[in-house]
Amino acid sequence: MKRMIYADNAATTKLDPLVFEAMRPYFIEEYANPSQPYSFARRVKLALKTAREKISACIGADPEEIYFTSGGTESNNWVIKGITDADSVNRSILTTAFEHHAVLNACHAIEQKGHSVFYLSPNSSGHIEKEGLLQAMASKPVMLVSIMMVNNELGTIQDIAELAKIAHAYGALFHTDAVQAMGHINVNVRDLQLDFLSASAHKFNGPKGIGFLYINKNTVNRNIFSPLHNGGKQESGMRAGTEDVASIVGMAAALEMNCKNLLKNNQHILHLNEELIAGLKVAGVKFRINGKMPKVNNILSLAFAGIEGETILHRLDLMGILVSTGSACDSNKTQVSHVLQAINLPNYIARSTIRISFSKDNTEEEVRDMVQALKKICG
Amino acid sequence: MKRMIYADNAATTKLDPLVFEAMRPYFIEEYANPSQPYSFARRVKLALKTAREKISACIGADPEEIYFTSGGTESNNWVIKGITDADSVNRSILTTAFEHHAVLNACHAIEQKGHSVFYLSPNSSGHIEKEGLLQAMASKPVMLVSIMMVNNELGTIQDIAELAKIAHAYGALFHTDAVQAMGHINVNVRDLQLDFLSASAHKFNGPKGIGFLYINKNTVNRNIFSPLHNGGKQESGMRAGTEDVASIVGMAAALEMNCKNLLKNNQHILHLNEELIAGLKVAGVKFRINGKMPKVNNILSLAFAGIEGETILHRLDLMGILVSTGSACDSNKTQVSHVLQAINLPNYIARSTIRISFSKDNTEEEVRDMVQALKKICG
Repeated sequence: MKRMIYADNAATTKLDPLVFEAMRPYFIEEYANPSQPYSFARRVKLALKTAREKISACIGADPEEIYFTSGGTESNNWVIKGITDADSVNRSILTTAFEHHAVLNACHAIEQKGHSVFYLSPNSSGHIEKEGLLQAMASKPVMLVSIMMVNNELGTIQDIAELAKIAHAYGALFHTDAVQAMGHINVNVRDLQLDFLSASAHKFNGPKGIGFLYINKNTVNRNIFSPLHNGGKQESGMRAGTEDVASIVGMAAALEMNCKNLLKNNQHILHLNEELIAGLKVAGVKFRINGKMPKVNNILSLAFAGIEGETILHRLDLMGILVSTGSACDSNKTQVSHVLQAINLPNYIARSTIRISFSKDNTEEEVRDMVQALKKICG
Repeated sequence: MKRMIYADNAATTKLDPLVFEAMRPYFIEEYANPSQPYSFARRVKLALKTAREKISACIGADPEEIYFTSGGTESNNWVIKGITDADSVNRSILTTAFEHHAVLNACHAIEQKGHSVFYLSPNSSGHIEKEGLLQAMASKPVMLVSIMMVNNELGTIQDIAELAKIAHAYGALFHTDAVQAMGHINVNVRDLQLDFLSASAHKFNGPKGIGFLYINKNTVNRNIFSPLHNGGKQESGMRAGTEDVASIVGMAAALEMNCKNLLKNNQHILHLNEELIAGLKVAGVKFRINGKMPKVNNILSLAFAGIEGETILHRLDLMGILVSTGSACDSNKTQVSHVLQAINLPNYIARSTIRISFSKDNTEEEVRDMVQALKKICG
C-alpha cells in the first residue's frame, strides 16, 4: 500500500496509542458494572471519577458538571431538546446559520413542535458579530443562545465570552458547540461564563462514540432542563445507562494529553499551514483562504479557481492524500455547504473549496507532497 | 489477590478476548470517519455494513432494520419517547410493572407530558398472562405494548409471540426489551412478529456503551416514530452522530459468537445451576427459587431464610464471590426490588433474595466454592 497522508483531522482523528493503552484494562480485567456495590466494581467507579475530574480540570469546571454522552451530536441534541422539552411552554432559541447539522437539525425538529428558532448569519469573515446578537436579543425573548466555538469548515473562532455576556444580559442561557475547539484551543467554562458546552472525544485523539456535555450547576436545573435517558441513576439520573467505561477513560486521557501539549501541537500545525501556503504560492497555484482570523490552526479552508472541490478530493485520494470538501454531500446530489453559503461565498468559490486539517502527526515532508499534488491538480 | 468468582453476568459480562481482537483494528489503523467519501473510509464503511448484516442475521431481521445505539437504555428510551413524540397527539402505552427502569422511567417521563401508561402485573411465577393483556387491550385503545423478553431479576421468559399477536390484533405496535435475552435464547423478530426490539452488547460479552434497536421496516415509519438524534445522515437519518465503529464491530462479533455457541453455553450454565441447587440442598442450606419456568439458565433468583440479600452479597464479596441482590439500591436507603414486589413476594423473602448469574466461563469448582460460602453465611 502506498503511503497515506491524512489531512482530515477535523472529520476524525487517529486514536492516540497511549489513549488505547489507557482504555485497554477497562476492556480486559476491569469489566465490572460500575453501579454494583461490590469491591470488584470499586476500581471501575474510581476510573469514572478520575475521568470526570480530569475532564473538568481541563475546562475549569467542577466534576459534577460533566455528563458523559455518546458524542457531540448527542450533546448538542440534548441541549436543544432538553431545554424545550422540560415543560409544555413554547420556547425560543437563537442560533446561527453556520452551526453543525447536529444543532441545526435539532433546531428544525423543535420548530416542528411549535418552538421558535432564530438564525443569526455570520459575517463574510466567518464570525458572529456582537451587534447582530445584541439586536436580535433586544427584539425578542430568547431562552437559549447556541453558538459554536469553532466553525467546523472555516476554523473561525467566535468571541464566545462576549457573545455569552450579551445572552446573559438578556436573561438567556448560553450553549456552545465546542466539538472543533476542545483540545485545540484553551477553553475555560468559568471565564467564558457558559451554561452548556458540547464536546466529542474523537475530534481530539480519543475514541469514537463518546463525548460529554458540560452543564453549569448554578444556572441549570431540572425544572428547565430534561434528563436525556431515563432509567438507572447514572450521571446523576440525567443520562441513564451503563457507563461506557473504557471510552470515558480514553476520552479523559486524550483530552488531558491534548491540553498539555496544546501549545506545542498548535505551533507545529501552524508551521505546517504556513509551509503549505508558502509552497502553493511558490508553485504558482491560484487559491484563496476562506474565513479570516481569529481561526484555529488545524482547519484550513482553501478555494482553488476553476476546479470542483469534489474533483480535487478524489484526485488527492488517488494520490493517497485525504482531505475533505467544504461541501456536505447529500445522499444523491452534491449541495453547496451551508457554512460557505452563510458567509456569502459566491457559489463557484464554495464549490471549489477543500478543507485541510492537519494534526500533530503530520510532517513537513507530507506538506511538500501535498503542494506537489495540488500543483498537479490545480496548477 | 485472591481468586475471584464472577457470578453477576446479568449485570455485565466480561468482554470476550476474541471480540477485543475484532475491535482493535478499528481503534488503531482503521480510524477513518465512515461518512467520508475517500478510499480510506471504505473499509470502515464496510465494517459497519458487515456488522449490521451479522446482527440482523442473528435475529432474522434485514440489515436496514438494525439501528446502532449507545445501549439498552437508549434503545428503550428511544422507543417509548419516539412513539409518543412523533406528533402532538396524546398516546397510550401498555407495559408491565416489572420492566427494567429504562422502560419504566421513560414511561413516567412521558406520563408527565400527558400520555397514558398502563402497567400490567405479572403473576406470582413471574410471567405476564395472555388473559391479562387481552383484557387490558379490550378496555382501551393502546398504540404501543412494551413487554420485556426476559426479566432481569427473575430470568423468566415471556411468551412474546403470543403477547405480540394479541397486541397486533388490537392494532397496537409491539416492543420487547430483549436486553437479557439476546445471546442467551434464540430470538427471531419475524417469528415473534416484533415491531421493535432493544439489545445491549455488554450483556452478551460485547463492549459497554453500544447496543441496537431493531425497527420493523414494514410497520414503523417516520410519521409515527421520531428520529433520536438529528444531525448527520448516519443510521438512515434516524440516529445522527459519527458511528462508534470499534464498538459496533465488537457487538456484532460478540452476538455472532454467542448465537453460535448458544446451545453449548446454555447446557454448561444449566449444569452449573443444577450443581448449585443440588449442592445447597446437600449442605442443608434453606432457600427458595423465585420465578418459575420458562426461565433462562443464566439468571437464578434465590431467597435465603432469615438473612438480608445485601448482607449475603457483602459477605460473599469478602470471600471473592460476586453476585447481585434482587433489590435495586436507592442512593441512600435500600428499597425492595420493584420486580419482586410485582410478583407479590412477601417483603421478608424479597429482602433475603440474591441473583446469581453464571456465564460460559464459570466452572464446577467455582460452584462448589459458592455452595460452601453460602453454607457458611446462610447455613
